[in-house]
Amino acid sequence: MKTINLNQKFDLIDGYWQPKIVAQLNGQYVKLAKFKGEFDWHSHEFEDEFFQVIKGQIDILLRDQVITLRQGECFVVPKGVEHKPVATEEAQVLLFEPIATLQTGDKTTPLTVNIDDQNWI
Amino acid sequence: MKTINLNQKFDLIDGYWQPKIVAQLNGQYVKLAKFKGEFDWHSHEFEDEFFQVIKGQIDILLRDQVITLRQGECFVVPKGVEHKPVATEEAQVLLFEPIATLQTGDKTTPLTVNIDDQNWI
Repeated sequence: MKTINLNQKFDLIDGYWQPKIVAQLNGQYVKLAKFKGEFDWHSHEFEDEFFQVIKGQIDILLRDQVITLRQGECFVVPKGVEHKPVATEEAQVLLFEPIATLQTGDKTTPLTVNIDDQNWI
Repeated sequence: MKTINLNQKFDLIDGYWQPKIVAQLNGQYVKLAKFKGEFDWHSHEFEDEFFQVIKGQIDILLRDQVITLRQGECFVVPKGVEHKPVATEEAQVLLFEPIATLQTGDKTTPLTVNIDDQNWI
């Protein structure tokens, strides 16, 4: 039962596209990640994914539109929907998703990170 | 699939201690609420509750300590833990909790609000 200071937690994150866990509740993780550049197209068969931009700006490319999210904006990518996150400049993002969610969803790519208990910050 | 702008959503909220739903994912709701004054002591038997302060400052009183949360700080109240949120000045808070969570947990008080599909903003 500790206070989670988002700024302090983001300071602990070095790489991009490597979500770190900051809280667990009700079978869900709260994760933080820095985005920069282009992630891979993927979808999550069984899990919806919540994005909240804490700092900066990201685009979530969908097959038929682009969702631009600025600081203080959120978006849910429903399960099964292909998406590709992109950030021109470094952005800080909070994610809510089930514990079982693999970051690259239905694909294993060079960007895939296994999220397990080693990934707490 | 719409962008959720937290500032715009908070502008739609008039009262205090009346959570409004802004997103649903994986059996959980993302809710926003304005806090001011003192809420009731309560606990949630089966649900952990995530608090993120978007603006202002709140205290979460526990039976043995006080957790002070400022903008950009988060806290998880584990299931079963009695807590009493307090805010001296108006604060804006994001909550993440299961759909079934009743705001006042194990107690029905004058502050209890039934959260259902009428409570989306």
